[in-house]
Amino acid sequence: MPKVATRYLDVDPWVIRERGFHPARAAVSESIFALGNEFMGVRGHFDEGYAGAGMTGSYFNGIFEEEDIPYTQYFKGFATRTHFMVNAVDWLHTRLWLDDEQLDLARCRCNNFVRQLDLRTGVLERSFVWTTRGGKRLRLSFSRFTSMADPALGGQRVQVTPLNFSGALRVRTGLDFSVPHYARGVNLWRAVKYGRAGGAHALMAAVQRSGQRVFSSFQVRGVPAAQLRPLREEKFIGVAFSLPLHDGTTTGYDKLVVNLTEKRAQVADATVWTRGLTQTRRLGHFSYDMARQRHVTFWADVWRTLDITISGDDAAQQGIRFCLFNLHQSYHGVDPHLNITAKGLTGEAYCGWTWWDTETYCLPFYLFNNPAAARNLLRYRYTTLPGALQRAQEKDCRGARYPMGTIDGSEAVGTWQHGDLEIHVSAAVAFGIWHYVQVTGDRAFLQEYGLEMLLQICRYYASRGSWSPRTGEFGFWGVMGADEFKMMVHNNTYTNFMVKQAFAYTLRELAAARRDAPAALARVLKKVALDPGEPRAWRTMARRMRINFDPQTGLFEQHDGFFDLPHVDVRRIPPTDFPLYQHWAYFRIFRCDIIKQPDVLLLLFLFNQQFPLSVKRANYAYYEPRCTHESSLSPSIHSILAAELGRTGDARKYFGHATRLDLDDYNRNTSDGLHTTSMAGAYLNIVYGYGGLRTDGPLLCFAPSLPAPWQAFSFRLRYRGSILRISVDRRAATFAVCDGPALTVCIYGRRHTIGAQPVRIALRPPSW
Amino acid sequence: MPKVATRYLDVDPWVIRERGFHPARAAVSESIFALGNEFMGVRGHFDEGYAGAGMTGSYFNGIFEEEDIPYTQYFKGFATRTHFMVNAVDWLHTRLWLDDEQLDLARCRCNNFVRQLDLRTGVLERSFVWTTRGGKRLRLSFSRFTSMADPALGGQRVQVTPLNFSGALRVRTGLDFSVPHYARGVNLWRAVKYGRAGGAHALMAAVQRSGQRVFSSFQVRGVPAAQLRPLREEKFIGVAFSLPLHDGTTTGYDKLVVNLTEKRAQVADATVWTRGLTQTRRLGHFSYDMARQRHVTFWADVWRTLDITISGDDAAQQGIRFCLFNLHQSYHGVDPHLNITAKGLTGEAYCGWTWWDTETYCLPFYLFNNPAAARNLLRYRYTTLPGALQRAQEKDCRGARYPMGTIDGSEAVGTWQHGDLEIHVSAAVAFGIWHYVQVTGDRAFLQEYGLEMLLQICRYYASRGSWSPRTGEFGFWGVMGADEFKMMVHNNTYTNFMVKQAFAYTLRELAAARRDAPAALARVLKKVALDPGEPRAWRTMARRMRINFDPQTGLFEQHDGFFDLPHVDVRRIPPTDFPLYQHWAYFRIFRCDIIKQPDVLLLLFLFNQQFPLSVKRANYAYYEPRCTHESSLSPSIHSILAAELGRTGDARKYFGHATRLDLDDYNRNTSDGLHTTSMAGAYLNIVYGYGGLRTDGPLLCFAPSLPAPWQAFSFRLRYRGSILRISVDRRAATFAVCDGPALTVCIYGRRHTIGAQPVRIALRPPSW
Repeated sequence: MPKVATRYLDVDPWVIRERGFHPARAAVSESIFALGNEFMGVRGHFDEGYAGAGMTGSYFNGIFEEEDIPYTQYFKGFATRTHFMVNAVDWLHTRLWLDDEQLDLARCRCNNFVRQLDLRTGVLERSFVWTTRGGKRLRLSFSRFTSMADPALGGQRVQVTPLNFSGALRVRTGLDFSVPHYARGVNLWRAVKYGRAGGAHALMAAVQRSGQRVFSSFQVRGVPAAQLRPLREEKFIGVAFSLPLHDGTTTGYDKLVVNLTEKRAQVADATVWTRGLTQTRRLGHFSYDMARQRHVTFWADVWRTLDITISGDDAAQQGIRFCLFNLHQSYHGVDPHLNITAKGLTGEAYCGWTWWDTETYCLPFYLFNNPAAARNLLRYRYTTLPGALQRAQEKDCRGARYPMGTIDGSEAVGTWQHGDLEIHVSAAVAFGIWHYVQVTGDRAFLQEYGLEMLLQICRYYASRGSWSPRTGEFGFWGVMGADEFKMMVHNNTYTNFMVKQAFAYTLRELAAARRDAPAALARVLKKVALDPGEPRAWRTMARRMRINFDPQTGLFEQHDGFFDLPHVDVRRIPPTDFPLYQHWAYFRIFRCDIIKQPDVLLLLFLFNQQFPLSVKRANYAYYEPRCTHESSLSPSIHSILAAELGRTGDARKYFGHATRLDLDDYNRNTSDGLHTTSMAGAYLNIVYGYGGLRTDGPLLCFAPSLPAPWQAFSFRLRYRGSILRISVDRRAATFAVCDGPALTVCIYGRRHTIGAQPVRIALRPPSW
Repeated sequence: MPKVATRYLDVDPWVIRERGFHPARAAVSESIFALGNEFMGVRGHFDEGYAGAGMTGSYFNGIFEEEDIPYTQYFKGFATRTHFMVNAVDWLHTRLWLDDEQLDLARCRCNNFVRQLDLRTGVLERSFVWTTRGGKRLRLSFSRFTSMADPALGGQRVQVTPLNFSGALRVRTGLDFSVPHYARGVNLWRAVKYGRAGGAHALMAAVQRSGQRVFSSFQVRGVPAAQLRPLREEKFIGVAFSLPLHDGTTTGYDKLVVNLTEKRAQVADATVWTRGLTQTRRLGHFSYDMARQRHVTFWADVWRTLDITISGDDAAQQGIRFCLFNLHQSYHGVDPHLNITAKGLTGEAYCGWTWWDTETYCLPFYLFNNPAAARNLLRYRYTTLPGALQRAQEKDCRGARYPMGTIDGSEAVGTWQHGDLEIHVSAAVAFGIWHYVQVTGDRAFLQEYGLEMLLQICRYYASRGSWSPRTGEFGFWGVMGADEFKMMVHNNTYTNFMVKQAFAYTLRELAAARRDAPAALARVLKKVALDPGEPRAWRTMARRMRINFDPQTGLFEQHDGFFDLPHVDVRRIPPTDFPLYQHWAYFRIFRCDIIKQPDVLLLLFLFNQQFPLSVKRANYAYYEPRCTHESSLSPSIHSILAAELGRTGDARKYFGHATRLDLDDYNRNTSDGLHTTSMAGAYLNIVYGYGGLRTDGPLLCFAPSLPAPWQAFSFRLRYRGSILRISVDRRAATFAVCDGPALTVCIYGRRHTIGAQPVRIALRPPSW
């Protein structure tokens, strides 16, 4: 896998820092320096505008435009409408002039450039010195944050210091709804209403076709109101003013922005506007410093349990903190109608869609840091259940068919080979429910939401599956598995196994509910209109599910006929051929034994304790050399299994990719946005990989190991009301409960009860 | 297969006649009454315009518009540009007024309507009586033809007889380039030049994006020139005049149209215009009657050898003549840059594309009626070889990859599952070359064109195929076979077998050329730059080709794993579910053992004599019940094999579909255009089915049989300079050479030499 790190940022345990502006990496930096708070996100684009290559980006979670999907030939059941998170108001919009020269880092003479994001505070700062054509030197600094404490709130501070002159800086600042959606090359908003609310200037705009709205207002602090000249332009509201400059004296202003969104097109403009004004008034009393302080305090609280420390490898330390920071920025469970998007709120790529990696990759991060957020992620699947029921019907099936990619619950993926053939998404949702209940013990969730989803999911698979006339087995023909390099295959092992588990789990929970919660069960059964024959059929289907396994070799065959696929040696493919998606005629990748990402191996990770080490070893040895890792979800799973199997070289190699994928731009596309959900893989990589955590049994299990160059690492898990701290050094792993009751866990195969008193256990080599 | 005949036309051995206008079938009739002469075609739409549902259609073979293909997600190698035969000038355009009432069969009171197409003459006639709101009764008759003798020429005759008044008919007639392309809902032409040439009025127009041009001119005969008022409108040129009417007296006028096309956008307008004027002058001296006579004489000559007679079944007699007529209308080998399109020149459906059925279905019709046309069909593949070479490259392959559907040789099919996965088209071209040379003995064709194509076709398959790691066999992974209900399958038997034959045949011809035509061979080898290792590799590939055959059962498995596909009983599918393409979620059809059309069975037809009867019997019994015949190419092949196997019921059932598919609108889509290439299947159905002809061995073989209700049938074959007549009655088949030297053929497995003296041989039961 010819992936090469490109490192231009400082390696620092807590700070992402760019020294000297790197114009060739401007768009990459915009992604890396993006801020967000689940509700909204903004790329690290320059406040003052930039004529060079880049992408001014501002997003609101769940605010989308919709489009018809074009087909050369439409077939029944194809998705007809797509939707995508739409680039919204640039609320940082600022333009600065000195003597008629407009500041622009693409055109002006600037030096001493430093941009840094402190992960502890979530505040982005940037400073540099601008030398005008006339020789005037002005030092500028910009700060910004998207408030975690008050998600509607965004703050911007601009400060300037003239170094060799006195005079005035002309400033224009405001809210700009005219920014293009870059993937379409056009702006997708129409202005609905301009107005004032006390000292604030407000503009409400609607997405052209979806009719969703964003209300945005701003106030400028630090400049007398009388000096602000109001500006109203097409899709823009702002003010212009002049900032007096005194040689050697720092001056500046702050801008506080309040945003409000309305997703329902049918809500009247007047209602949204009124709510926007109320919101503006409610938050309008904050000063920049107060608002910033609330934000910084929030982050300090978060880090108290979120942090993972690594000693002896600053690059990894920085990488994992960057991942934790961005996962938390993207989603922390504020709203059960929101979810994690593949790129967070940092770019247009992947359209702001939520995928099946929410349950298979991201969930553990929340399970062990923020169980309420984990619950909300699953509630999102409940709120979008109607769309899943409808989608199954459109495909001549019953039950719940969750979409491959979505914002509002409807299928947004118009590439039918993915949207239609990847039927494993519903099984991932069932897996998520199982995993959530397994870890949290939250049975109330099952009764309120979980069981209904499970029943509809099983009903879907029962209607979608078929029976082999040759062997009498049940299975799924015509699918794409987790590995997207194989299309229209039969009996993909990942899919079949996941569904078998979903059937079995649902039947167990049905039995448990019959015993423990008959009233709740009766309500659900009535709602779902379950025929008593259905669970009986599921039992048979689970028992007779085809799982292609060869006991001789210990190998799972990825799907019917995989072992007969012509062989291509990945190591012999020229590096310039990667990514294959771009350099190979599309169908080449489907007719050989190369895979894009773990499929069988993902299963060995998700249900780790069901498989003996010999099986993991055999399958890793077979599939790892065939994998191109063209999915960013790939390396972490390989690293975790490699750690378990004592393949320490592989474990380290793949770990590097996972934690620093974006900081080092391994995939050459960080410019489009961060690989947010892959960052969850990085989390798994430490906690499940080197921590050796396993959560698919009744007890938490650990088998810690320390990669060669590290001196130590530590992480914390919230679990059943306690906080468990695990720290690992060269000799031993130390377990202690920092908060809450003692916990019984399994360490290297033995039970231990851990309380406040640290328990120190000597490290064992992998594959003990 | 719930297909139901809808019969509203007279059953008559030679004439297609509609008595009384059937407005609900207006568009179906437009297709059925379409005329064409290979160069141009025109639907049976009403000359005078029609406000009801219908489709005014006029087409020139090879004149197309082009378009970008839209993709939600583009992958490397996908076709980027499509093209389609564009609806062109309505040269029959006529508008008639009596006392300010405009004639329109959708709005006016009309009776005594008769429309008829005489297949002997190729002239379409229509008459009826129009009663105006004022009670005036006018008898009208319209005739038209597209000249077979002078393909540029179209003729129209309008005659009227006032039945109860005298007065005047206002007439507007001309050339209308403003007709929409119905599939796009817009007109796709721009007028380039208006002008006069003697008595003719001319208009040249260009297709908007492709830049192809049509020059069209017309003259009105029978009206004094001074009374013609010229009309020039947007994309229209014409004349208006008044026709005096005298009670009881028939009067009228003729319109002669001359057309010329230019496909090359780079040719200057002025050049095309000049050529158009020359053409107009050259043909301008014809009267309607002269032109009509030349056309009628042409058809009379054609029928002398083309005809197939059937006694005792007028419906079948009419059906087969309708097929022969339309095949000859669509293509008879005038231009090696043209080919047969799926719908002939009768509608927009299938975009005027040429498909692989040219070689697999249509070729025999030409081989045995018009060998020069057969040669030209194959020369078309030679003229489009550069496009096939380029397409292979775009798909990371070498050699010649012929397109799935095309007019100009580039891939026009944007539905990639067909355009990209149906790799069997090149093999069909190789099959066509083999079959042509086999039947005609034209080895000069091989040296001039055939060998070069064969080498490039083999090179393509060698680069596209792979080796099984499990068995060491060669084959093709990731394809769609002849049966389009199975997608992305491996080692489709039809494809693998066809390619194996192509390799073997090419190697034989290489050896023959080395012996017989070393100079020609050297030229070809140099042009193709053949590496000596390539034929060696092809030999191995052919020898090691995977052909899934089970000697126990005698069954070919349609592709790897077909026998493990879940079973669906076609007979239990509700009739309302058909066609499945429209009523089933797309992917259902791909995950069960239902097939759309013959795949293994097609092979058993094409290479019939290679397979023992037991194998044909076993495979027919297995695949026939699984077939929905959703391709119009399906029934005829089933009928032919059923006849061979003595399944007389099946043979008759499927024969009916094949010959009267359009006349009885079995597929409910004749309104879009005729199933022209399926008509070739109807020809095969008689000649190969009941005639028992086999042409895949060194001798022509026959095994005639007579279906129960028929009294007799007969057909003629042109073969090696002779015309062989075969007539079959209830007791015997009679063979005679009507023209040319005696022929040795094989009848019921025995050699016979047939001369002018008829040889009568008693019929034998099938499967002798």
